[in-house]
Amino acid sequence: MRSFKEYAQLVNENLPSALPKAGAFDRELLEACRYSLLAPGKRLRGALALAAGEYAGAPLERALPFALAVECVHAYSLIHDDLPAMDNDTLRRGRPTCHVAFGEAMAILAGDALLSQGLLLMAEAAARDGAPAVRAMEALTKALGIQGMVGGQAQDMLSERSDRADEAALDYIQANKTAALIRAPLLAGLLASGAPARTLQAFSEYGLQLGIAFQVADDILDVSSTPEALGKSVGKDAEENKLTAVKLFGLQGARQRLLQATRRAVQALEGLPETAFFTDLAEELCGRSF
Amino acid sequence: MRSFKEYAQLVNENLPSALPKAGAFDRELLEACRYSLLAPGKRLRGALALAAGEYAGAPLERALPFALAVECVHAYSLIHDDLPAMDNDTLRRGRPTCHVAFGEAMAILAGDALLSQGLLLMAEAAARDGAPAVRAMEALTKALGIQGMVGGQAQDMLSERSDRADEAALDYIQANKTAALIRAPLLAGLLASGAPARTLQAFSEYGLQLGIAFQVADDILDVSSTPEALGKSVGKDAEENKLTAVKLFGLQGARQRLLQATRRAVQALEGLPETAFFTDLAEELCGRSF
Repeated sequence: MRSFKEYAQLVNENLPSALPKAGAFDRELLEACRYSLLAPGKRLRGALALAAGEYAGAPLERALPFALAVECVHAYSLIHDDLPAMDNDTLRRGRPTCHVAFGEAMAILAGDALLSQGLLLMAEAAARDGAPAVRAMEALTKALGIQGMVGGQAQDMLSERSDRADEAALDYIQANKTAALIRAPLLAGLLASGAPARTLQAFSEYGLQLGIAFQVADDILDVSSTPEALGKSVGKDAEENKLTAVKLFGLQGARQRLLQATRRAVQALEGLPETAFFTDLAEELCGRSF
Repeated sequence: MRSFKEYAQLVNENLPSALPKAGAFDRELLEACRYSLLAPGKRLRGALALAAGEYAGAPLERALPFALAVECVHAYSLIHDDLPAMDNDTLRRGRPTCHVAFGEAMAILAGDALLSQGLLLMAEAAARDGAPAVRAMEALTKALGIQGMVGGQAQDMLSERSDRADEAALDYIQANKTAALIRAPLLAGLLASGAPARTLQAFSEYGLQLGIAFQVADDILDVSSTPEALGKSVGKDAEENKLTAVKLFGLQGARQRLLQATRRAVQALEGLPETAFFTDLAEELCGRSF
């Protein structure tokens, strides 16, 4: 296993190849895609796919298409989230959001294009690498639609308009809006690399808890950090009446919830060999918002 | 082979099963998806997938996931096209557009959800049916992204802001915005059903020409039909300065172009046995705008 930084670096090196070369008529669309996809980012999701693939003992090439695909999907979700009709954000990864830079219509299309491209990368891997890649594609595709990320986004938006303090809705939002696309690249990396069922099961729970921890940390940082440190607007959750762990449990309650999810993530991997990369990562993510 | 009406009816009967059952938190999202997906429509794309599958001699079940997937993708593209930032349409298939009925944010998400769901249907088929389904998925996925439908949409939008009368741009828009998603379900149905290379090649050209004919007919109807007859707004192309066959060649020139594409579609299938279903369809589509 390499370090997180090395996996993220591998994602960064390969990410430009996730998009096709521009032709005579798609230059501006590709420019908008590149603007968002290649903006500086943690590459958490892509790095998780690569780390999981290497953990399963296969060459990195098996997991790489899924690492690139999940970064395309993540970039699409950020572009659509930031749209005026959605969260109406103007700052993302330290730059103007895609619709501020390219206009709203092109931002909608760039999001659509990045989602389509992520799926094309997976379909090509499936055609090339056979059954394990097909299963990886199925797992990742499941995580991003109605019973995954988009479902979570929709409930996130509906909850803004409600004053019910509803823990079941919060659980649903955190599991689907965020955790689905943190767990999925782990599973895709493992599946593409032929990991056994027991490993998949443990990482499925680890990914869910890591994703919840990640979202709770995000909720905390929105009330305790600065735009300079985060590269995006802060204080927006309360402004938009978002249903967050901080809103429901207060700052201390949210920190407890973060610790709990982190502990559960670490516990999920007990009994598997050499999981330090993943348990360290969970503890580090947890630490960033204390 | 059955009649077009029968294939369209099969699509209609199965289309509700393309979406998952609602859970506690995704009711409104699914309602928006259903509203657009199940609105009355020709089901041209789904019917083409089924007809191509049956033409290749396989049971209809092989092509069915691709028929449903392409209808999901088509519904998503209509929802996003109609958004205020895009074509700003209020009437579609004889009803208020999705964003008029459900709000702009939910319409963006319903489009994202339908695209994701279409891809999930294909990924599940690929996991179940193996290599032929994987190839079908690859062909359909290729057609809907940057080097396909989304690329065509982007250029369509950019051309509205330009006064260059550019035939190359028109060819690109018609091939990508429209024809890509008419050809793709034909290829997907054939691939999923194990058709030989020669059949694929002929239908690839047939699908391209049929798609061009379909778009030119649409351009013509926008200046010569009524909202009541079409179930959508008319006269919008000129209003929005869209680059269409009518704008570039006039009504008579567009009709010539329609006849030419129809003739090429029919010719593409010469030498293949029993293609009457497909050649009749091309001639019928051509006839509807004369």
